[in-house]
Amino acid sequence: MGRGGKSANGEAREGGEQENKAAWLIGVNNLKIQTFNLPRLGPNDVRIKIKAVGICGSDVHYLKTMKCGDYEVKEPMVIGHECAGIVDAVGSEVKHLVSGDRVALEPGISCAKCHQCKGGRYNLCPDMKFFATPPVHGSLANQIVHPADLCFKLPENVSLEEGALCEPLSVGVHACRRANVTPETTVLIIGAGPIGLVSVLSARAFGAPRIVIVDMDDQRLAMAKSLGADETVKVSTKAEDLDDEVAKIKKAMKSEVDVTFDCVGFNKTMSTALAATGPGGKVCLVGMGHSMMTVPLTSASAREVDVVGIFRYKNTWPLCIEFLRSGKIDVKPLITHRFGFSQKEVEDAFETSARGGNAIKVMFNL
Amino acid sequence: MGRGGKSANGEAREGGEQENKAAWLIGVNNLKIQTFNLPRLGPNDVRIKIKAVGICGSDVHYLKTMKCGDYEVKEPMVIGHECAGIVDAVGSEVKHLVSGDRVALEPGISCAKCHQCKGGRYNLCPDMKFFATPPVHGSLANQIVHPADLCFKLPENVSLEEGALCEPLSVGVHACRRANVTPETTVLIIGAGPIGLVSVLSARAFGAPRIVIVDMDDQRLAMAKSLGADETVKVSTKAEDLDDEVAKIKKAMKSEVDVTFDCVGFNKTMSTALAATGPGGKVCLVGMGHSMMTVPLTSASAREVDVVGIFRYKNTWPLCIEFLRSGKIDVKPLITHRFGFSQKEVEDAFETSARGGNAIKVMFNL
Amino acid sequence: MGRGGKSANGEAREGGEQENKAAWLIGVNNLKIQTFNLPRLGPNDVRIKIKAVGICGSDVHYLKTMKCGDYEVKEPMVIGHECAGIVDAVGSEVKHLVSGDRVALEPGISCAKCHQCKGGRYNLCPDMKFFATPPVHGSLANQIVHPADLCFKLPENVSLEEGALCEPLSVGVHACRRANVTPETTVLIIGAGPIGLVSVLSARAFGAPRIVIVDMDDQRLAMAKSLGADETVKVSTKAEDLDDEVAKIKKAMKSEVDVTFDCVGFNKTMSTALAATGPGGKVCLVGMGHSMMTVPLTSASAREVDVVGIFRYKNTWPLCIEFLRSGKIDVKPLITHRFGFSQKEVEDAFETSARGGNAIKVMFNL
Amino acid sequence: MGRGGKSANGEAREGGEQENKAAWLIGVNNLKIQTFNLPRLGPNDVRIKIKAVGICGSDVHYLKTMKCGDYEVKEPMVIGHECAGIVDAVGSEVKHLVSGDRVALEPGISCAKCHQCKGGRYNLCPDMKFFATPPVHGSLANQIVHPADLCFKLPENVSLEEGALCEPLSVGVHACRRANVTPETTVLIIGAGPIGLVSVLSARAFGAPRIVIVDMDDQRLAMAKSLGADETVKVSTKAEDLDDEVAKIKKAMKSEVDVTFDCVGFNKTMSTALAATGPGGKVCLVGMGHSMMTVPLTSASAREVDVVGIFRYKNTWPLCIEFLRSGKIDVKPLITHRFGFSQKEVEDAFETSARGGNAIKVMFNL
Repeated sequence: MGRGGKSANGEAREGGEQENKAAWLIGVNNLKIQTFNLPRLGPNDVRIKIKAVGICGSDVHYLKTMKCGDYEVKEPMVIGHECAGIVDAVGSEVKHLVSGDRVALEPGISCAKCHQCKGGRYNLCPDMKFFATPPVHGSLANQIVHPADLCFKLPENVSLEEGALCEPLSVGVHACRRANVTPETTVLIIGAGPIGLVSVLSARAFGAPRIVIVDMDDQRLAMAKSLGADETVKVSTKAEDLDDEVAKIKKAMKSEVDVTFDCVGFNKTMSTALAATGPGGKVCLVGMGHSMMTVPLTSASAREVDVVGIFRYKNTWPLCIEFLRSGKIDVKPLITHRFGFSQKEVEDAFETSARGGNAIKVMFNL
Repeated sequence: MGRGGKSANGEAREGGEQENKAAWLIGVNNLKIQTFNLPRLGPNDVRIKIKAVGICGSDVHYLKTMKCGDYEVKEPMVIGHECAGIVDAVGSEVKHLVSGDRVALEPGISCAKCHQCKGGRYNLCPDMKFFATPPVHGSLANQIVHPADLCFKLPENVSLEEGALCEPLSVGVHACRRANVTPETTVLIIGAGPIGLVSVLSARAFGAPRIVIVDMDDQRLAMAKSLGADETVKVSTKAEDLDDEVAKIKKAMKSEVDVTFDCVGFNKTMSTALAATGPGGKVCLVGMGHSMMTVPLTSASAREVDVVGIFRYKNTWPLCIEFLRSGKIDVKPLITHRFGFSQKEVEDAFETSARGGNAIKVMFNL
Repeated sequence: MGRGGKSANGEAREGGEQENKAAWLIGVNNLKIQTFNLPRLGPNDVRIKIKAVGICGSDVHYLKTMKCGDYEVKEPMVIGHECAGIVDAVGSEVKHLVSGDRVALEPGISCAKCHQCKGGRYNLCPDMKFFATPPVHGSLANQIVHPADLCFKLPENVSLEEGALCEPLSVGVHACRRANVTPETTVLIIGAGPIGLVSVLSARAFGAPRIVIVDMDDQRLAMAKSLGADETVKVSTKAEDLDDEVAKIKKAMKSEVDVTFDCVGFNKTMSTALAATGPGGKVCLVGMGHSMMTVPLTSASAREVDVVGIFRYKNTWPLCIEFLRSGKIDVKPLITHRFGFSQKEVEDAFETSARGGNAIKVMFNL
Repeated sequence: MGRGGKSANGEAREGGEQENKAAWLIGVNNLKIQTFNLPRLGPNDVRIKIKAVGICGSDVHYLKTMKCGDYEVKEPMVIGHECAGIVDAVGSEVKHLVSGDRVALEPGISCAKCHQCKGGRYNLCPDMKFFATPPVHGSLANQIVHPADLCFKLPENVSLEEGALCEPLSVGVHACRRANVTPETTVLIIGAGPIGLVSVLSARAFGAPRIVIVDMDDQRLAMAKSLGADETVKVSTKAEDLDDEVAKIKKAMKSEVDVTFDCVGFNKTMSTALAATGPGGKVCLVGMGHSMMTVPLTSASAREVDVVGIFRYKNTWPLCIEFLRSGKIDVKPLITHRFGFSQKEVEDAFETSARGGNAIKVMFNL
C-alpha cells in the first residue's frame, strides 16, 4: 500500500493479466491460496512480482495460534514478510526503479510524520503498517504493491533468495548497531537458531574480533562455527549449571565479553548473558522467549552493563545488500529447504519450518 | 593514600601536633572513636582536616551487618566517605592547592593504568580503592591523606557541608549523564529517599522539562516537590496496583516518559519503571533493593527501552560544585540532622540515620 | 503545499471568502502585495491565517539581490518564513489540530523518503521545499496551506509573535544540539546580531555555565548581556588585534572555552573562534560572512578542536515552544519593530530591517 | 621514565652489563650514537632492549631543522619513537609482563590526573611526556625504561618490526575512530604517503565498503591499491584542476563520500576534501602541510560536513595488535628499507627516509 494511501490492502481493485494469488491465513493451521486483489498503484508505489519468500518464526506462530505477542489475527490475512521480487510497474513519481529491476523489500511502512520517524527511529513509529502484522496483509503472493522507497535494487551478484534474507539479516545488523559492535568488541551469542546465526554473520561483518556462541545442540553449534563463530560452548537448560557455563564462556572468550546477544530470551539465557558480560558491556535482548523474566539485573547494572532493547530494524537494507554484494556475508547456507507456491507446498513448507530439526530457513520460490 | 602509593592507610606514621582520631567500625553495631595513624604524605597528596561528613545508607548497612553487596569488613575499618575539609599540608608536586583551601573529596582512587581508566570510565576500575569499602579506610576522621587530584577547591559561597554532599549528589549527576537527561527529557523518579531526591535535583539542573516522582510516603513526596518535582504520585507496595499506578504516572507526566530512575530497586519499582517508560526511552537502575529481579524485561526491550546501569560516578565533582556555586542546585534542605564528633554523638548520628523517619541526610561537623 | 503533493504552490486554485494576499518579491528592491492563490488542501494539510511574520536577514538579502547563497529568484516569489498563525481549515486525515488552534510553522517540507530523512537528518534532505527559497513560496500572506505535521500548537502563554520567533530560535537550538552544549559546556559566542542573540538564549537554556560574547558594538553587547551572557568582550575588525582579543576572551571565560559559535563567519571571527577554543572543544560555524576562509585550521585541528557545520535545524519546534512556555527563554526583547501588512508598511519594514542599527527583529502583525 | 617519576631521562644512572647507546640529535643534520644513561627502574616500569625502530617524518624534520610544529630541540635529545623490543627487567609492581616478553611501546606518558586524562582523552593531556618531543628523550637506543602500562605484549605471530609499526598505524586507527568509520562509511583518502597508507589499512580494517585514494604519484597510488584502496585518482598541484578532480573523485566513489582523510594538509588538498565530502559527512585533517589554510569552509559547514581534528592517538595499541594478529592488517609491505644501529647506518637511514622516493618506512634493527 502506498505511503499515506487511504485504501487498505485488498479493498481497491486493479485488473491484471492474470489473477493474483496469495497465501491467506484463515484460522489456526489453516492457510489457503486465494485471490488477492491489489490496491491501486499510487504515484510513489511499485508493483512487484514476488519471487522469493522466507518463512519466519512469527509466521509459524500466527499459523499455530493466530497470535504473536500483542497482535491477533481477527480477519483473514495474507501471510509472509521476508521477500524479494521483480518490479512490474512503477508509479508516476518513482525515479530510482524501472520495470524489471530485482528488488528486496523492507516490510514496514512508517508514518514519516511522528516524533519517532522524524527523529530517525522509524521502527518505533506507533502507526507502522507492517507485512503480515494484523490487520496488514503480508507478501506471500504473486504480486504486491509497495512504496518504492522500501524497495531496494539488488546488484547482479545478489540473488532474489538472498534479497529475501535481508529481512532476517536486518535483525542481526540492527542488533549490532544498537550494541555498537566494532572491531574492538568481543561478542557472545546465546542461541544458534536463525536469529543467533544472523547475529554471528552480522557481528563478523561489523568486525568483531572474537565471537563465542552458546547452544544446547551440537548440530546448530557446528553450523554457527561454519558461519564464523570462533568458539562454541554447549549448555544445558538447567539453572544450576549456570555458573559453570559462565566460567566456560569466559574461558572460551579469552578476554572480557563486551556485548552479548541473547537470541533466546529465557530466564536462564538472559541470566547467562547478564553474568557473562564484562563491566561497561552491553546485553541485547533479541529473542523473546519469556515475557516476565527473573534475572540478576542489579549486579549487572552495578557493573554498568546496559540492557539494550531491539525492535525490528531501521535503515538496514542498503547495508545488508552491501554485505551480500561484497561477500562479507554469505546467507545462502541458511537456506535448508525450498518449496514452490502451490497449496500443498505451502502447507508442507510451514510444516517443515514448524518442525524445526535441521530446518533453518525455509524458502518459497514463486 | 597516595595514588600509586604502596603503604596501606594506617601503616605508616607521621607525627602531628595532636593525635588524629577516627570512627572505627569494629563489629556489628560497634563503632569506636580511636587513634588513626596517617600514611606518609606523598608528593601528589594533600593532608586534610576533615570538617563535614555525611552518613550514607551503605555506612549504616556496614554498621548493622559488617557487609554491603559483595564487600565484607574483616578488620577494623574507619567509616565514612561523604566529606569535605580544609587543606593542612600539600605534597611537593601539588600545584593547584595550598594550605587553608576548603575542598570537597572524591572518595575513590583508581589505578589510572587499566583499560577502563584510560578509556575514561575509571569508576569501573577493578583496582579502585574507595573510602570505607573494605579493606580501605574511610574519612570520618580529624585528618586524612588523599591524592590532590581528588580534592576539589570550593568557591566561597559553597559551604563545607555542601561540599560533603557532592558525594551523594554525584550519584544523581552520574545517573543523569548516563541516561542523557537534557532539556528535552521528561523524567520519572521512583523513590523519594536521599537518592531519589538528589536525582530530582540533578534532573532539574540538567534541564528536564517535567519531573514526576513516586513514593509511598506523603512526607517524602512533599519534600520531593519542594525540591523541584513537578508532580507526585503516591503508590502502594502491592503488585496488583501496578497497572493503575502506571496509568496515573503517565497521566501525571502528560507526555511519554523518556527516562526513569528506579531509586529503590525492588521487583515492583523496576516493573513500574519498565512499564511506564516510553518507546526508545531509558530506565536507570540506581537503587539496589533486590538482587534477583522478576520484571517484564522483554516487552520493555521490544519498545527499545534500554536499562542503563550505574556504578558510583566519575568526573562529577567539578560539575556538582558548579551547580552549587551557581545556585542551580541547593542541597542544604537535604540536611535534617547535625552531630559533633564524640563517641556518643557518632552513635546517636548513626542511630538517627538508621531509624529513617524524617531523617534524610545526617551530617557530622568536626 | 501538502507533503507529497504534486501541485506547486500557487498553481491550484481554491475559492476563499475574501481574496488571499501575499508579499511577492518581483525584482531587486521590488516587493508587491498581490493575490496569492492557495493550493488545494490535502488530507494531511491545514490552512492557516498567518498572524505574525518576522523578517530574516536572508529575506533582506533576496530583496536586495534576488539571490542568497546558491539560490536565485527567477520568477516572482512570496517572501517570508518566520511565522505563526491560526488554523482555519484542516485536511481529512489531520488529528492533532482543529480550526482556531494557534500554531507556529516549521518552514521546510522534506521528502521523508531519502537516506537523510530516514536517518533523522531531514534538514539535509536534497528535495527539501522551504518557504521563500526559490522556487518555493514563503509565508508573508494572509493565508497559507501547510502540512499539519509542521504546524505546532502554541500553549496559552505563548503569543503568536513568540511562535514566529521559534524559527530563528531554532537556529540557536540546533547549533547547541550539534555542539552538544550541556551544563558542563562553557560557550563563546562571536557576534551579537540576531543569530548571536538566539545563541545566547539557547546556550543558557541548555545550561551552559558561562557564556562570553564578542562584538564590535557596545549596544549589541549590552543587549546580549541583558539576555543572559555573563561577560562581553569588545573587539575590532583588525586582524592584528586577534591575539590580544583571544587573550581577553580567555580571561573573560575564566576557564577553557569548550564551544564557540561563530555567528559572523568572517576570516577574523573564525580565526578567533579556532584560536580561543580549548583542546577537545568544538567550533560551530553559524554565520556565513565569507565563502572562502583563511583560518588557522591546522593548529586547531591538532588540538582536536572540531568544526561542526550547521544547516537550518530539525525537530526544534517542540523544544523551542517548551522553552518559551516554561520561561527558560524569553524572545520578546528581540522584537524591536512592528509593522502591519500594507504595501507601505511592508516596504518600511524591510527598509528598517535592512538598515540594521538598533533593529534586531522586525515583526509583521497581519 | 616512570609515570610520575621525578628524574628526567638520562639524569639518574644505573649500571648495566654493557654501556647503553642511543642516537642523539645534537644539531641540524647532526646525529651521534652516544652513551645514554637510563633512569632508575620505578616500581611500575620495565626496562626494554629495543629491537626495532621506524623513522617518522617528524624525526626527519627535527634532524633537518631542530624543530617540529611548536617544539624546538634546545639540548641534545635521543631521537626515535616508533619502537618495539624485549623486556629485560620489570619493576616490583609490574604484573602483566616478565623478562623476555616481546612488546610494542606506546610513546606518550600522560599525567593521569588532569581533566583530559580522567575524561578518556589522554592524548590531549597538557603534561604529556612523549618520546623524542623536546625535552623528552626518544627510543632509538639499545635500552630504555618505560611505564609497563605503555608496553603491550606481542602475540607470537606478530614480529617486533610490526610491533614498531603500531605507532604509525595508530594514527590511522585514531583517525578512523574519530571519524567513526564503519561498514557503512565510504572513505576518501588524500595523499598516499605513509600516513595515507596506514589510513587505507585502517579504514579497510574498520570495514569501509569503498576507499578511493588520491595522489600525484602513480607509484604511490599503485602501492595504495595493493594495500586495499578500491580506486585511485591521480591529481595535480594546480588549484584550477580542483573542480575536475572533485568530479573524478565522486565518480570513482560511485556514491556520496562519507569521510575524507586529508593526509597532506595543503590548501588544495583540504579544499578538495571539503568539496568532495557529502552532506552530513566528516573531514579529518591528518596531515599538517599548511598552518594557515584558505579553504571553502562555509559551504562545507552548510552541508553539515564536520572537520574533525586529530592529535596522535589514544588506546590504540591493543586494537593495532589485534589487527596484526588476525591478519586484518598487514603492515609489512610498508617497510621498504632496513638498517642496523651503527653511526654510518643511522646517518644513511635518515638520509634514505629524507630523500623520499620509493622509501615508505625505514626501519632500524638493533
